[in-house]
Amino acid sequence: MTIPDPVHPAWLPSEAFRAIGARRTLVLGDGLLAGTVHDEVAQACARYGGRVRRDAGSEPYDLVLALTTAEVPPGVAGAVRPDSALGDEGYVLARRDGATVVLADEPAGLLYGLFHVVRLGERAFAAERPAEHHRPATRRRMLDHWDNVDVHPVMGQVERGYAGGSVFWRDGAPRGELARVRAYARLLAACGVNAISVNNVNVHATEAHLLTDRLGDVAALADVFRPYGIRVHLSVNFASPVVLGGRPTADPLDEDVRTWWADVTERVYETIPDFGGYVVKADSEGQPGPFAYGRDHADGANLLAEALAPYGGVVHWRAFVYNHRQDWRDRSTDRARAAYDHFAPLDGRFRDNVILQVKHGPIDFQAREPVSPVVAAMPATRLAVELQVTQEYTGQQRHVCYLAPMWRDVLGFRPWGDGGADVAELVGGGDLVGVSNVGDDPYWTGHPLAQANLYAFGRLAWEPRLDPAAILDEWIDLTFLPAATGDAEPAASGATDRLRRTLHEIMDDSWRTYERYTAPLGVGFMVRPGHHYGPDVDGYEYTPWGTYHFADRDGVGVDRTRATGTGFTGQYPPPWSEVYESLADCPDELLLFFHHVPYGHVLHSGSTVIQHIYDTHFAGAEQATEARRRWQEAAGLFDPSLHDRVKALLDEQVRCAEEWRDQINAYFFRKSGVPDAHGRCIP
Amino acid sequence: MTIPDPVHPAWLPSEAFRAIGARRTLVLGDGLLAGTVHDEVAQACARYGGRVRRDAGSEPYDLVLALTTAEVPPGVAGAVRPDSALGDEGYVLARRDGATVVLADEPAGLLYGLFHVVRLGERAFAAERPAEHHRPATRRRMLDHWDNVDVHPVMGQVERGYAGGSVFWRDGAPRGELARVRAYARLLAACGVNAISVNNVNVHATEAHLLTDRLGDVAALADVFRPYGIRVHLSVNFASPVVLGGRPTADPLDEDVRTWWADVTERVYETIPDFGGYVVKADSEGQPGPFAYGRDHADGANLLAEALAPYGGVVHWRAFVYNHRQDWRDRSTDRARAAYDHFAPLDGRFRDNVILQVKHGPIDFQAREPVSPVVAAMPATRLAVELQVTQEYTGQQRHVCYLAPMWRDVLGFRPWGDGGADVAELVGGGDLVGVSNVGDDPYWTGHPLAQANLYAFGRLAWEPRLDPAAILDEWIDLTFLPAATGDAEPAASGATDRLRRTLHEIMDDSWRTYERYTAPLGVGFMVRPGHHYGPDVDGYEYTPWGTYHFADRDGVGVDRTRATGTGFTGQYPPPWSEVYESLADCPDELLLFFHHVPYGHVLHSGSTVIQHIYDTHFAGAEQATEARRRWQEAAGLFDPSLHDRVKALLDEQVRCAEEWRDQINAYFFRKSGVPDAHGRCIP
Repeated sequence: MTIPDPVHPAWLPSEAFRAIGARRTLVLGDGLLAGTVHDEVAQACARYGGRVRRDAGSEPYDLVLALTTAEVPPGVAGAVRPDSALGDEGYVLARRDGATVVLADEPAGLLYGLFHVVRLGERAFAAERPAEHHRPATRRRMLDHWDNVDVHPVMGQVERGYAGGSVFWRDGAPRGELARVRAYARLLAACGVNAISVNNVNVHATEAHLLTDRLGDVAALADVFRPYGIRVHLSVNFASPVVLGGRPTADPLDEDVRTWWADVTERVYETIPDFGGYVVKADSEGQPGPFAYGRDHADGANLLAEALAPYGGVVHWRAFVYNHRQDWRDRSTDRARAAYDHFAPLDGRFRDNVILQVKHGPIDFQAREPVSPVVAAMPATRLAVELQVTQEYTGQQRHVCYLAPMWRDVLGFRPWGDGGADVAELVGGGDLVGVSNVGDDPYWTGHPLAQANLYAFGRLAWEPRLDPAAILDEWIDLTFLPAATGDAEPAASGATDRLRRTLHEIMDDSWRTYERYTAPLGVGFMVRPGHHYGPDVDGYEYTPWGTYHFADRDGVGVDRTRATGTGFTGQYPPPWSEVYESLADCPDELLLFFHHVPYGHVLHSGSTVIQHIYDTHFAGAEQATEARRRWQEAAGLFDPSLHDRVKALLDEQVRCAEEWRDQINAYFFRKSGVPDAHGRCIP
Repeated sequence: MTIPDPVHPAWLPSEAFRAIGARRTLVLGDGLLAGTVHDEVAQACARYGGRVRRDAGSEPYDLVLALTTAEVPPGVAGAVRPDSALGDEGYVLARRDGATVVLADEPAGLLYGLFHVVRLGERAFAAERPAEHHRPATRRRMLDHWDNVDVHPVMGQVERGYAGGSVFWRDGAPRGELARVRAYARLLAACGVNAISVNNVNVHATEAHLLTDRLGDVAALADVFRPYGIRVHLSVNFASPVVLGGRPTADPLDEDVRTWWADVTERVYETIPDFGGYVVKADSEGQPGPFAYGRDHADGANLLAEALAPYGGVVHWRAFVYNHRQDWRDRSTDRARAAYDHFAPLDGRFRDNVILQVKHGPIDFQAREPVSPVVAAMPATRLAVELQVTQEYTGQQRHVCYLAPMWRDVLGFRPWGDGGADVAELVGGGDLVGVSNVGDDPYWTGHPLAQANLYAFGRLAWEPRLDPAAILDEWIDLTFLPAATGDAEPAASGATDRLRRTLHEIMDDSWRTYERYTAPLGVGFMVRPGHHYGPDVDGYEYTPWGTYHFADRDGVGVDRTRATGTGFTGQYPPPWSEVYESLADCPDELLLFFHHVPYGHVLHSGSTVIQHIYDTHFAGAEQATEARRRWQEAAGLFDPSLHDRVKALLDEQVRCAEEWRDQINAYFFRKSGVPDAHGRCIP
């Protein structure tokens, strides 16, 4: 495999395979993915002098990767056995009698086990290790690519993409650089991703045809993803029977429409036998949907689910349905309510191969939102929680914003309070979906440090209870240390400690830093309309988009209480319905999401709202400057071209953070008339 | 000539020529334009049964159009003689002894005389008429087309165009519909326009080549405009020697650069002998210019003027130079000052074939601005005043906004007070330039009533003292009455009175109506960034564009005084320097352009600023609704398809006016906290 020369290896540099490549490995098992495992090891051995075999013979091995169904010869670490079924993707890992052993019931488990050993590096071979059982917490760890085949006149090649063009498409055609796609598949497998949708949820004219006459383009991608255990999904246009099939209707209860979908889906599976399924954005922001025919979203989703069911395919049906032509004068309509209002009444109506895909917050991927109440409202529905890896509202891969801490908060949220299940458990039978941040940029993600978000997404999807700082360590160790220390160096040294410390200092708190200098206290938006980069406090205030802050000379925030507001708090079960309702109990960081308060309102922190706005904005911009300083000090620790790029981006981040600080502070000073208690400059 | 079928005849319907076409006409004189005159009359005669000859013979004539150099046979209205030189374009018109006579020194004068007779219609033949001498007040009455050859990714085919595509270009190539261009040329000649630039002042990559290898495309247009007395000009890229010529520099003092321009210009005139000249936007909004080489704008303009001088060509050098990367925090920089600060010191340095093209106001075509102080500051420089016929900031041809009253105010402004010259006199030796509002729309201008702006521009450029209501009457009489009354009907009737009254009611005050519901008291902007349609009070407030209102909880407006502000008032001579400086004397309509005042400040009108904002916004939206009502009542008086289009546009105008009203009122209510004195609903 040739990766295009300028593409950065991300968390799979050759050196990451050094510990394996220098040793003797046995791979036992058949099938495509076992072949992938063998090839990965063989490639490492070719570089580092080890060897790999697929039949045991009599020699000793340092590493054994074997299916539980395989005949493991006695004496070759035969004593390790799983103590329960490992499932499609699980594995057990142990080290005993001088051999490190990975066993799996299925070949995908072997692949994930191999990458586990890669993460461990020399540690995998250092000491005896009791058997650890690993199984993914979610069935599907999926990336949605909002990639267009044609360049969209407004949204470009990748909608909300900040990493150049698409890795799949260019100017209306497949890009054809399958080596790059393969390198991408490998990166995804290494962090646990097992599903991908290859086109934008806004399915435009050309893209609609991927379902039918351009299905070959999808099949070509599926062939590349398959050896890494990743199934390909497709975003489809709900009106396809009309748009593609020339039918007079796309009514989900129309028999001819059902037949059309059944026929089309049959042909999809003839071409791509392991096709994953359809992703649908219906009745949302102008996309067609069942409402046009007086049907509801269960009717719509079930139509496609029925077509997919014979083949084991699923429908990801997005719950992002709201009125995007709202009258800003109408304070009773609340966009935050929309997903729950539309979907909660439908619980139990969806076929079991429908996965309702819910954005993690009730609005739209803001830096701070409460968790969507939909996740607790649909016990009889399979759910996917959708995260946005691409940094639409969190700095567009020009700002450092490590999102794992936010996602960890989401996954750890307990809708019924301390004793109840958390979000990770609620979606345990379902999926975690991320909107991809990847493009044809040489660093994959525009900002080199944004690679960490992609990595962390996969890892959290596999194991939602991982500590974000620990994930960051994994990512650092794989991405930077092997290259930084060279093949022959020990993995730990003063320089590597400094490198690791630098990245933690810059990244650990970067999401909260971003939150500090942007929209305050959970109020959201305040971004430039359209592109969503940089501040514009009133940018969405008088628009139809349903995203308002209602700041006036006296106060700010959205009253979503049951007592006096839109009643959104009532969509949560207790205790949160009460916590959010109560001005006294509502967490500071979400105060303006749930309440309209005077500028003098005193937070739990002891600060007033207005002084909090000033303080956090001065602090956030200061922290951006501090991050830049730390990065500059670390110049010698990183590859110079990577360092230069991050340096330039940090310059932009500091500029933009100061712009946020000054605009937000000036706006609220002009409105409130309250001076900063510390007398700092507010323009 | 075939005009594309769906194109509206505007102010030249066949019926407008009925009075001429039914009579006996003699056209005496040679040359291309005399031929045009003959052909126009012949075409009318073919329809209405009259006849036209180019040699007198002995018969009597109703209409004689003759060059003063021609031998007018005795008895054929020979008694009419001009009492002074008529110049290139002037004519004398009289009716004596039963014949209407137009005499001109040059063929262009005959053409303008013919269209004068068309405007008079039957009145031209009704009674004896003493000799009237007509000469244009300005040398050049010019339209600048901001048309792109390629579709620009952001600005489209026509920058700030609201009438569809370009009449000249489509998708990178000449459109090739020369019949449409010819119909356009004829309309322009009929209102007095004699110069046109055929491409955008922002000269992009493809468009730069019109100067050299794509000059043939320009020549093809010049061939069509020539028979109507219209010279073609070209917007050029100041960096052409680099961009097109492969030279290392475009330094205006570099000998090789001068030679390059001289050579290129020589080839232009070999191809288009009556080529008008170059239009240049330099060092402005990203366009290249002399600053890059440490030269000033006199150096830059003179470079091109020198190349054009041998052929009688001119440079229109735009004075629209300002810092578009201003820091909004910096209140000392004032964009309003920029043109004067850049250009006034250069007075006397420009060659006499440089025409400094100055926007009528100091900012950018807002609905209300003071007149630019540059027009009074450059006595030794030839000036053009630039008006924006295309309604970028005045409703984008979706709102009725008859601009002649604004332009009349501009042209009548007396910088030195009552005894001094007005703007019309100041530009008398120079030009009036309008940014075209024409596209490939069947009505030419998107909004059918926006045709009146194009017509009025030409007429005011010819005679700046014309009354806007009288121009509107001319336009109505030509455009609507012949068609409405049919060939056989008398011109005046109850229906035609109602039609005329309806249009006056809707259009006469429409500019002030638009002003009322948009940005108040001359403060400007408050439009959506980028496209500039609809309200966004803070849209430009924290941007680099230099267009701010500084509203806070206490007051609003820009302090441009010498005493406490940016000092812009000092760019005017007395009395205006004192009038604008004085809070007591400053005209209400410009108050916020010059002063920052508390919301409670009392205007000359007796109202407070805040109550004025509320009152005018309620009134303006109400007037839009009233205009729609009047239009609906007049349904039977207009061509149904035209009536339908205007009706739909008035719906949009009412919607948008109410949006303006509510956003402006809500914004200022939220900021000031002052309730409406009349208790009306402010959202």
